[in-house]
Amino acid sequence: MEKSTISRAVIQRLPRYYRYLGELMSEGCQRISSGELSNRMHVTASQIRQDLNHFGGFGQQGYGYNVEYLYNEIGKILGLDTTHRVIIIGAGNLGTALANYPNFEKRGFLVTALFDVNPERIGQTVGDIPILPLDTLEDYLAEHPVHIATLAIPKTAAVGVAERLVACGVKAIWNFAHTDLTVPDDVVVENVHLSESLMRLSYNLSTQKKEKGTD
Amino acid sequence: MEKSTISRAVIQRLPRYYRYLGELMSEGCQRISSGELSNRMHVTASQIRQDLNHFGGFGQQGYGYNVEYLYNEIGKILGLDTTHRVIIIGAGNLGTALANYPNFEKRGFLVTALFDVNPERIGQTVGDIPILPLDTLEDYLAEHPVHIATLAIPKTAAVGVAERLVACGVKAIWNFAHTDLTVPDDVVVENVHLSESLMRLSYNLSTQKKEKGTD
Repeated sequence: MEKSTISRAVIQRLPRYYRYLGELMSEGCQRISSGELSNRMHVTASQIRQDLNHFGGFGQQGYGYNVEYLYNEIGKILGLDTTHRVIIIGAGNLGTALANYPNFEKRGFLVTALFDVNPERIGQTVGDIPILPLDTLEDYLAEHPVHIATLAIPKTAAVGVAERLVACGVKAIWNFAHTDLTVPDDVVVENVHLSESLMRLSYNLSTQKKEKGTD
Repeated sequence: MEKSTISRAVIQRLPRYYRYLGELMSEGCQRISSGELSNRMHVTASQIRQDLNHFGGFGQQGYGYNVEYLYNEIGKILGLDTTHRVIIIGAGNLGTALANYPNFEKRGFLVTALFDVNPERIGQTVGDIPILPLDTLEDYLAEHPVHIATLAIPKTAAVGVAERLVACGVKAIWNFAHTDLTVPDDVVVENVHLSESLMRLSYNLSTQKKEKGTD
């Protein structure tokens, strides 16, 4: 099907379907009804049918969804049927955590190098991934094109590094720096702003308390 | 004003306003028009006026917004005018990165302890924050109530630890484990599912390529 016909809201939900379907597969489940999936995911069955109908004809009356087929189809939509080469800028705790994350490689995201400015980190490895000097970024990318660059560095450094990445032709940036990046239209950015997530939690906590009349 | 009258969509946007207003303050800016803020934030001026009007009468014709006042008011709405005591379960790279994050303490999120099961980590510190054995969690919480518990552990361990936290009266969980937690109604959970964020980036990248006709 044409990807562009799927609404942004559905796309936002697809990774969660993908995760649940993956769990079902690992439990040996071959098919599931929208009702069972609804119970598991705490989403209404009607929402599930509406979302998954975008993929056409998977759900059959009295049979349910073929778990593996749906998992693979959603994986294709999400671009997970190819290997993405990824670099991580910043080999501090966050960059190291991301490089170590076992799920990423399983899903086809292959971290090929980390970059840092800290002489103590340069030359070390994370698993078998090398930590290279940040000033060799352009040389590295000329020889090893990547699909995704991850920014796990402070915001003061992030803007300049993002410009260098874009100049080298990198088309996707996964940004953990606490700033918004300005990039050309053909470059996609996904932000993970941890402070903002924590503030939403704080808001929900304070609202909860207020409703309960406690403090 | 009554917090509950603000829509969820506006709440989602408040942390970003808060960040921009904080940056303006640190640049010495005392007031700003919706037009200038619009240019900076890449949001329409009409959206900004609509969002910030929820806070009543800050924007004055020909004057603009009082940056510090608005920053403080949004901070109060987000619950940032009090100190939140936070613990982190998991002192691996991710937990350590979170404990080291300088912005959290600045915003009133005070990490008081990390917990781990790894004998090599227990007894160490991150900055001056102690790493304690996970089996002392209940004793610790009885003596040191916290507002927020952060789960920086694998999903297999997360469900059990979340149950223990809830049993100890913790009302807010910041969940980095790649699973959804089932908690009572009076407990709030904010998920940071990094794999799902990476999948959205992958989707946007593959859609971008398709639109450009390249691969």
